Amino acid sequence: MSELRQDPTTKEWVIIATERRKRPSDFLHQEATAEKPSSVSSCPFCPGNENMTPDKILSFPDSDTGPWRVRVIGNKFPAVAPNGDTARQVEQGCFLKMNGVGVHEVVVESPRHNMTLALMNDSQVTEVLLAHQQRYNVLAQLPYIKSLIIYKNHGRNAGTTLDHPHSQIVGTAIVPRHMRTQYEVAISYYDDHGSCLYSDLTERELEAGTRIVMESNGFVVFHPFASRRPFETWIMPRAQQDSFGEASEEDIQHLACVLRTTLLKLYRALDNPDFNLVISSAPIGEERADFYQWNLRIIPRITQPAGFEVGSGIYINPALPEETAKFMRDLQI
Amino acid sequence: MSELRQDPTTKEWVIIATERRKRPSDFLHQEATAEKPSSVSSCPFCPGNENMTPDKILSFPDSDTGPWRVRVIGNKFPAVAPNGDTARQVEQGCFLKMNGVGVHEVVVESPRHNMTLALMNDSQVTEVLLAHQQRYNVLAQLPYIKSLIIYKNHGRNAGTTLDHPHSQIVGTAIVPRHMRTQYEVAISYYDDHGSCLYSDLTERELEAGTRIVMESNGFVVFHPFASRRPFETWIMPRAQQDSFGEASEEDIQHLACVLRTTLLKLYRALDNPDFNLVISSAPIGEERADFYQWNLRIIPRITQPAGFEVGSGIYINPALPEETAKFMRDLQI
Repeated sequence: MSELRQDPTTKEWVIIATERRKRPSDFLHQEATAEKPSSVSSCPFCPGNENMTPDKILSFPDSDTGPWRVRVIGNKFPAVAPNGDTARQVEQGCFLKMNGVGVHEVVVESPRHNMTLALMNDSQVTEVLLAHQQRYNVLAQLPYIKSLIIYKNHGRNAGTTLDHPHSQIVGTAIVPRHMRTQYEVAISYYDDHGSCLYSDLTERELEAGTRIVMESNGFVVFHPFASRRPFETWIMPRAQQDSFGEASEEDIQHLACVLRTTLLKLYRALDNPDFNLVISSAPIGEERADFYQWNLRIIPRITQPAGFEVGSGIYINPALPEETAKFMRDLQI
Repeated sequence: MSELRQDPTTKEWVIIATERRKRPSDFLHQEATAEKPSSVSSCPFCPGNENMTPDKILSFPDSDTGPWRVRVIGNKFPAVAPNGDTARQVEQGCFLKMNGVGVHEVVVESPRHNMTLALMNDSQVTEVLLAHQQRYNVLAQLPYIKSLIIYKNHGRNAGTTLDHPHSQIVGTAIVPRHMRTQYEVAISYYDDHGSCLYSDLTERELEAGTRIVMESNGFVVFHPFASRRPFETWIMPRAQQDSFGEASEEDIQHLACVLRTTLLKLYRALDNPDFNLVISSAPIGEERADFYQWNLRIIPRITQPAGFEVGSGIYINPALPEETAKFMRDLQI
């Protein structure tokens, strides 16, 4: 029979549906992926088309004219923008609204149109993550920014509209309810146990061992106990750091190596699956606490949530995380 | 600039992204929909193939041999099943789990393989909703059922795997966290105002008028203030009923008419879009309260949530609900 499991970080239940159980290899990418060119004349992120995008904010190397390896720019169609006040307005007594204040930047991860994180070398992935972190630390200083989300959409099913490898940073003037809930759960755990839920969870995952994909230089990669989707992957630092901004350059180098290896395994195991990648960090101005731990998650978009998920918030996962983790752990790349 | 709006029922913010704004007609179904046959020999839900499914639980008319118009059966691959105890077990001090106890039924909405709710007549839609309600009221008596979700997946992007028109009922032995949060918000509102959040919200929507699609016989159809997705539609009864089980047969007839009209408008406006439909009702055993209101929601699956939504829980909606509601309101069918 199927099993219900609760995510200790959100208190949300997940149904691990063994009746519909699929083997790890059943999740192979179904659509044929056409070979992509290394450069596209109409792509705004390809070298030579820098005038098609807003001005450069940061690049590696830091030059305005020469070639670049990583380039950060403003999003041409930002979801939020850095002006307007953040006062809440109430309409008709029950409709709360505010200006869409915030920042929205794009990190172009490579000059090569058909490159992808999984196939880069460690130093290139390190530069991408360092660009994320540098912008994180600059944007966190803006007085109106209360939360920063770093994310990546890879493939159409993951919501991307531009093929050229890129990730995004959005800063909002509110703390998302989702993050607030995770914070409340972590605080309550800290009050009860005097320790960090995320650290304890990671240690328990290491003890169990069955859901571990790899462990290396202070980072643990696992398929969480209550995975909402097949091959959902968490990368958790063992150092106690609630903000992504606190990670040292050495931490970032180690993360880059672990991330690239994990993504390459996914690339090989599932034939370049569509996925989202998210770096979660403490709400801005609420850091320096002992109960939260920044982390990175990879969510393959190989199944489609349906009406039950939309209506109840409970995900039905047709894969056992113990099986998918073992599959990934054993995979030679 | 874009606008942030808060859903009063969940306290979740939504970004209404005017920079990326699309007109209502931009959301037309892009994929060509092939003409489907009225019957398929391999379809387990087509008449003549009744032996391919679990036994009939209910049918209209109620006969085991003759033709049927609506037929309820068990799900052959249930996400949850009616046996096992509901005791929570704790593994390693932090992993909470329990047996996948519950019920999972399928409502075959028509004998015709290529029929769809939008194109049925009112009496057929009424029978579908009456089947939902009859099963709801029977399943709500089971001692281990704490929540019942009625939902429908229409189209591949909405997570369906079988084309034959059908909906599903899942009963779980837990109250989804999502529902618990909505209940907590509604209770807090009731404590503050002495009235039902959902009723007040519906009256405010009627006052504003700009997001109303239609109003008829005690049901109000609107695109909510903080719509997460383009053309998200709520159908709210004006009667104060916290459980779907309480609706009278006359209420169900009126709902059927309003639902069919709404779905037909969507069918015409967006060329048969993929969508989920969900009926939300009070947690079982917590009914007869004044603060909740059962309701029906239609969520077109015409945009793909990306990493930002996955990471933050904040949806970016590229459509203004005032514009989409006007478009639907003015549409002649």
